[in-house]
Amino acid sequence: MKKLQNIPEPSLRRLVRYYHLIKGLEADNNETVSSSWIALQLGLESIQVRKDIQYTGIAGKPKSGYNISELKNAIENTMNWNNYHDAVLAGTGKLGKSLLMYDSFKNYGMNFAVAFDTDPSIIGTEINGIKILPIDKLSNLVKRMHIHIGVLTVPAIVAQEVTDMMVEGGIKAIWNFASYQIKVPENVYIVHAQFSQSLALLTNKLPQLK
Amino acid sequence: MKKLQNIPEPSLRRLVRYYHLIKGLEADNNETVSSSWIALQLGLESIQVRKDIQYTGIAGKPKSGYNISELKNAIENTMNWNNYHDAVLAGTGKLGKSLLMYDSFKNYGMNFAVAFDTDPSIIGTEINGIKILPIDKLSNLVKRMHIHIGVLTVPAIVAQEVTDMMVEGGIKAIWNFASYQIKVPENVYIVHAQFSQSLALLTNKLPQLK
Repeated sequence: MKKLQNIPEPSLRRLVRYYHLIKGLEADNNETVSSSWIALQLGLESIQVRKDIQYTGIAGKPKSGYNISELKNAIENTMNWNNYHDAVLAGTGKLGKSLLMYDSFKNYGMNFAVAFDTDPSIIGTEINGIKILPIDKLSNLVKRMHIHIGVLTVPAIVAQEVTDMMVEGGIKAIWNFASYQIKVPENVYIVHAQFSQSLALLTNKLPQLK
Repeated sequence: MKKLQNIPEPSLRRLVRYYHLIKGLEADNNETVSSSWIALQLGLESIQVRKDIQYTGIAGKPKSGYNISELKNAIENTMNWNNYHDAVLAGTGKLGKSLLMYDSFKNYGMNFAVAFDTDPSIIGTEINGIKILPIDKLSNLVKRMHIHIGVLTVPAIVAQEVTDMMVEGGIKAIWNFASYQIKVPENVYIVHAQFSQSLALLTNKLPQLK
């Protein structure tokens, strides 16, 4: 397999769109798909589609295009979705709870091993089979279980404190939903998943749309 | 005020990060902030920060930088967050319900006026004060209420059908959480908010992080 390159964020986001698109095709028993067809469906340029797919290490054939199952596998490999990695979630409020309830993360490389909160009334209970433990156990447990992914769904006011606990425990990647600019050492990677970021893309366009 | 430009998506996403960062500063009674300080906090280049902020139509002063409340207002204006726009949500499953429960969307320009589902056991009930109506009323109601934002949290298999209902009713912007590549006419704008897209940014990096 090709060595992993550093794929730009917009290409990663588009590759996920191609993935969902071709999963529909696979269900229809198609065998191949062309970059121009993908481009047409998603309102992109074919050259862009080909360039993005190149990052996954596979090439299309001049006439027929890409083999669909090969392309699907290549995207899954690129995203590391062919197996899943344990994660912890901190903050089991409305959003945290709904993420714990969402069973499809395993298809996208992530499995919740355990969750943490401060509320004594829910500590010791389970959400969707995932145990809720007291937050002061986070660092130790994460270290002991060798977990590298942390999902942050705590209120902004405690976001940095909980981030520090995650880093202390050896978390290497944080999926941050808290509306706070958490700081981490250089070797820790943050993905900003706040609704406000995604919603801004929409509300910014509103005046042009009416 | 300056005419709105078409701001690139990465700049919009970063502007939201600056916004959350300076909101913290405002609470600390600071009056100004420099592009280099923002850059340092977020691991970016100052020139990038200045370029992004330029899109909002304000300029910093050579020594002191930006006035914080002016910058905050400029970002809110750019995102159209200074007032809110009515939206409908379709699909009140786990995710849809948790979005309806989230009260902070009004701070980010959006207000749920009404929600739709097909499940007779919840039609007629309310979630967080928001009425759930039968999905076949969507087009008419959206048209009658002049609502232009649709939030799509339905299963992939009905995503296109519900999208068509939204478009029929005059929806101009769709915030899509369904793992399906919905198609819309050219004058309708889609923001892809699937968890899988954001999670891909994280899982793709995992091999480099250990």
